[in-house]
Amino acid sequence: MSALSRPDAPRDAIGVLGGLGPHAGLDLVRSILDETAARRDQEHLPVVLVSVPGRIPDRSAWLADRSAPSPAPPMLAVLRQLDEAGCAVAGIPCNTAHAPPLFDALREGLAEEGRELRLLHIVDTIVDRVREVAPGAERVGVLATSASIQNRLHEIGLEAAGMHAVVPDAEHQARVQASIFDEDWGLKAVSSPPDPRAREALHAATEHLVREGAQAVILGCTELPLAVPEAVHEATGVPFVSSTRALARGLIRATFPHKLRPSPSASGA
Amino acid sequence: MSALSRPDAPRDAIGVLGGLGPHAGLDLVRSILDETAARRDQEHLPVVLVSVPGRIPDRSAWLADRSAPSPAPPMLAVLRQLDEAGCAVAGIPCNTAHAPPLFDALREGLAEEGRELRLLHIVDTIVDRVREVAPGAERVGVLATSASIQNRLHEIGLEAAGMHAVVPDAEHQARVQASIFDEDWGLKAVSSPPDPRAREALHAATEHLVREGAQAVILGCTELPLAVPEAVHEATGVPFVSSTRALARGLIRATFPHKLRPSPSASGA
Repeated sequence: MSALSRPDAPRDAIGVLGGLGPHAGLDLVRSILDETAARRDQEHLPVVLVSVPGRIPDRSAWLADRSAPSPAPPMLAVLRQLDEAGCAVAGIPCNTAHAPPLFDALREGLAEEGRELRLLHIVDTIVDRVREVAPGAERVGVLATSASIQNRLHEIGLEAAGMHAVVPDAEHQARVQASIFDEDWGLKAVSSPPDPRAREALHAATEHLVREGAQAVILGCTELPLAVPEAVHEATGVPFVSSTRALARGLIRATFPHKLRPSPSASGA
Repeated sequence: MSALSRPDAPRDAIGVLGGLGPHAGLDLVRSILDETAARRDQEHLPVVLVSVPGRIPDRSAWLADRSAPSPAPPMLAVLRQLDEAGCAVAGIPCNTAHAPPLFDALREGLAEEGRELRLLHIVDTIVDRVREVAPGAERVGVLATSASIQNRLHEIGLEAAGMHAVVPDAEHQARVQASIFDEDWGLKAVSSPPDPRAREALHAATEHLVREGAQAVILGCTELPLAVPEAVHEATGVPFVSSTRALARGLIRATFPHKLRPSPSASGA
């Protein structure tokens, strides 16, 4: 018996496929609360988070080597759970998971099963958020995993929207990758608070992207807003765009648009 | 078709009946992460959060006036969802919801339906946590909603464990209640950051409880740890016990006891 057949579980919830990593999933739920215009408990939105990190192999590892365990089947299993729990829409707080080889498999899997759940693409929501915090920007920097950069994940979306992506050179990209994955000081290992080495690597990469002409910089991995707030970068005056906050706003817009907090300027966000 | 019948969804997840309020639910999921011994994404525990604040009437209001809308049926509906999503155990990050008239109805509802889901009682986990952070304490202070105090929620559990509950006098209790519910400055309205008036009311009530002999003070409403950390109270040297952290540790102990972080002293928590 599906939860959907019950009158007490209408199809209106926001689904979160979490655990990729677990702190990023939590940060997305927090962002949904922050971006909702509500004064009382009862005014907040229905959210279902399924976070099963132990069942979902690393996305970057599989994109680099398709003989590694695939994250697609367990991710599709979670999307099914969200669908059956009455979610109208779902988001995945992991940019890398939106690389076409993986994301396309998820959307196809949902379509084949005739699922009603609408799965948002994180880059669509990021492009919307870039327009909010940096209207008129033409050159947009990208901080993301090496797998996302190699798959041109954010580049493709930005270009489709008439913007140009600025990505780090190899040396800076290696440091960004380490700031996420290093087993001693990367954000997946240590995020509350982050290690100063992670902050420093991201700071250096940001300055590099701005020198290359970036007018805004996307925090294009959901671990990055754990270390860098969505605000104007002090050293360069360029605004950051958090992929987590972008996805939160996209999920609210897709379900309860009248509950979406008006967007302040990036500096006030 | 139940999610349980799928081999990819084993019955091992921790369920959270959230939304009471939404920030408290989020804080519980964060505490589960904090209290888990894990270095990599994949080492974190499976968690399902269902947060449907708009569907669950206020617990205090119903306990005070049984002709008000009952929170029991929608809470039971969420517990069913958690059961069907493969949760082995569930917790409710709302102390007031554990008052016997409400909590007993939930446990009876699960039993009548033959559900396997094991619903923890938050006060059992609080008693365990008091023993961890204040071993040997005989007199334990309670900060909680007036509904919890009137229903002797924490008192009953402490007495069963051989401890004595110290509750605020009427004047201090009124301020504690306001620190949670006041529509302008209470924690349910403003929690990040909390309003100084809420912190001040809780500080005054804590000093009052310590003057009455409390050797530890329970933050017995899951909104309270949003304003007061589980640490030693600077002014009195008495440790706080967070009901949220207690529940998080109880949920881990019930599912993956080997993953429970060793308990530091309260000052290091």
